[in-house]
Amino acid sequence: MIQARGFAAHDAHSPLKPYSFSRRELSDNDVLIDIQYCGICHSDIHQARNEWGNSTFPMVPGHEIVGTIREVGRKVSRFKEGDSVGVGCFIDSCRECASCKEGLEQYCEGHLVVTYNGIEKDMKTATQGGYSNLIVVDENYVLRVSHSSDLPAVAPLLCAGITTYSPLRRWNVGKGQRVGVVGLGGLGHMGVKLAASFGADVTVLSTSPSKQKDAERLGAHDFLVTKDEKALAKAQGRFDFILNTVAAVHNVDALLSLLKRDGTMVMVGAPEKPLDVHVFSLIMKRRNFAGSLIGGIRETQEMLDYCAQNNIVSDIEMISIDKVNEAYDRTVKGDVRYRFVIDMNSLS
Amino acid sequence: MIQARGFAAHDAHSPLKPYSFSRRELSDNDVLIDIQYCGICHSDIHQARNEWGNSTFPMVPGHEIVGTIREVGRKVSRFKEGDSVGVGCFIDSCRECASCKEGLEQYCEGHLVVTYNGIEKDMKTATQGGYSNLIVVDENYVLRVSHSSDLPAVAPLLCAGITTYSPLRRWNVGKGQRVGVVGLGGLGHMGVKLAASFGADVTVLSTSPSKQKDAERLGAHDFLVTKDEKALAKAQGRFDFILNTVAAVHNVDALLSLLKRDGTMVMVGAPEKPLDVHVFSLIMKRRNFAGSLIGGIRETQEMLDYCAQNNIVSDIEMISIDKVNEAYDRTVKGDVRYRFVIDMNSLS
Repeated sequence: MIQARGFAAHDAHSPLKPYSFSRRELSDNDVLIDIQYCGICHSDIHQARNEWGNSTFPMVPGHEIVGTIREVGRKVSRFKEGDSVGVGCFIDSCRECASCKEGLEQYCEGHLVVTYNGIEKDMKTATQGGYSNLIVVDENYVLRVSHSSDLPAVAPLLCAGITTYSPLRRWNVGKGQRVGVVGLGGLGHMGVKLAASFGADVTVLSTSPSKQKDAERLGAHDFLVTKDEKALAKAQGRFDFILNTVAAVHNVDALLSLLKRDGTMVMVGAPEKPLDVHVFSLIMKRRNFAGSLIGGIRETQEMLDYCAQNNIVSDIEMISIDKVNEAYDRTVKGDVRYRFVIDMNSLS
Repeated sequence: MIQARGFAAHDAHSPLKPYSFSRRELSDNDVLIDIQYCGICHSDIHQARNEWGNSTFPMVPGHEIVGTIREVGRKVSRFKEGDSVGVGCFIDSCRECASCKEGLEQYCEGHLVVTYNGIEKDMKTATQGGYSNLIVVDENYVLRVSHSSDLPAVAPLLCAGITTYSPLRRWNVGKGQRVGVVGLGGLGHMGVKLAASFGADVTVLSTSPSKQKDAERLGAHDFLVTKDEKALAKAQGRFDFILNTVAAVHNVDALLSLLKRDGTMVMVGAPEKPLDVHVFSLIMKRRNFAGSLIGGIRETQEMLDYCAQNNIVSDIEMISIDKVNEAYDRTVKGDVRYRFVIDMNSLS
């Protein structure tokens, strides 16, 4: 076994603490990665605090991982020592179902091996994530990072980036379209950058007027305060597409009414409680209310390459690992612009 | 003015009663139609009883109209005396907005002139519907009926037929697809007939096990009792498309979970209160929850022609106009298989 070090949650209520654990030995198709940076995703906090009720402890969170290949298994063909790589929300899947075969592993109908708080293919070992110094991953689930600088800011692309890229691509967002991005947080700020880079006319919809300046800096062309009922009334039927990144219960009917006929609002934020949807909001303009989950390996690679070519990274605040608990509290309060990334060199 | 006779609601609480009123004189593009049959749609009842809060009285309901051209205006080119025709849910629209220009008049962004409980283009005359002997309609909003028999059973195609045909076509339902139809009423029974005729594998989802035999007779290949939790669990991820015709509040999450990845559930029933939607149901398999409203004039004509060629009509119970109030009560109880049609010859 390979000895690894990291920070783990040991129960739902205590702060994360240093933790030593084992990674599996390299199989033929595995690579061993020195983790350099790991983003803090809101879902790390949900799971570390068992807010989804499916947590197992101890848990090393983290699925926005950037690092360097230290060693490759005997049959590894796609990577070599020293390569810059990323790991996202899952590290393996069944490889046999229709979704896996179509490269949509995130919707695997068999066993999707999520990066942490999951179970390895041996069906007994708990997976442990990126708040650690090392990780062992099958090369088929490793992404190539071609950004030549800003590597810490690449880490959040592995979840926040692909989660917004995938629906924007699937619903063909681009030139000539008016796109709304609801919520300007970790996901939302990536949604704005990506949608704007695709040529869309982007409006940020936010409850916080204070974010207008930032929205414009990120590439938004317009800003709408969702608490302003007059502004909302004026924007009825305005958008072709809305990317909704809000993970709290909110009035989705008011947002659906901003869609044109045949428009789509896609949820990438996942409120724990159900949302009220008035069917008239859907029927009267043949609107569509959909959801989207991260992205597959092929599309994640496409997104990383696209972002490298177009100089797109996340806006981050880098922290040392000992600040992780503080960063959790600040993330919950929305006090981060726009993603914390842990510098894994700080792991002593 | 042209004198017409019919049955009207005079307030939200009293039975419908005989009513004499005026129709406009024929303009150049108008046709005068002798109404022969008119279906009873559940929305007639909602509006006669002011359950949507937007009713004006007296109100002659009815938007599933079949009749014969009695007279044509000076410039009418598409119809002549004696032609068999239909009128659906609207009799005019702005003709200038993007939706009208695309032949999707039902989503008119200007003034959609609904067949009754609406207002004419003069912006002052109340429109009156099909529970009457005569109607005057611009020829561009009149449909050609080519069924050679079964005319009473054609009437419900003008609303129940097009309301189910349009989403089945838009979401490309056909061979090789598994389709669920939720609710076996006026809309649902048409959904089953049409989806089956398009070659889909059709399952009826109903709370009433007693409807299984009828479902099969109508063309369904399978039947699922939605109260049977085991059957529901077994059907997770089964359907490519679900047509949901239920107009009462119900558990849509349980139904969404029956969709495959990228599957769509379209609401054509419109519950008055909002529905609870768990975003996870949408995200986990990139599902879509959409709505659809009747259909445009071009598509309604396409549907009528398709039904004539394929011998598709509605299953009806014909009544005389004096039974309309009784029929309302029975419709509310679901005690009709599957549509009441009023024989307008019974109007004395």
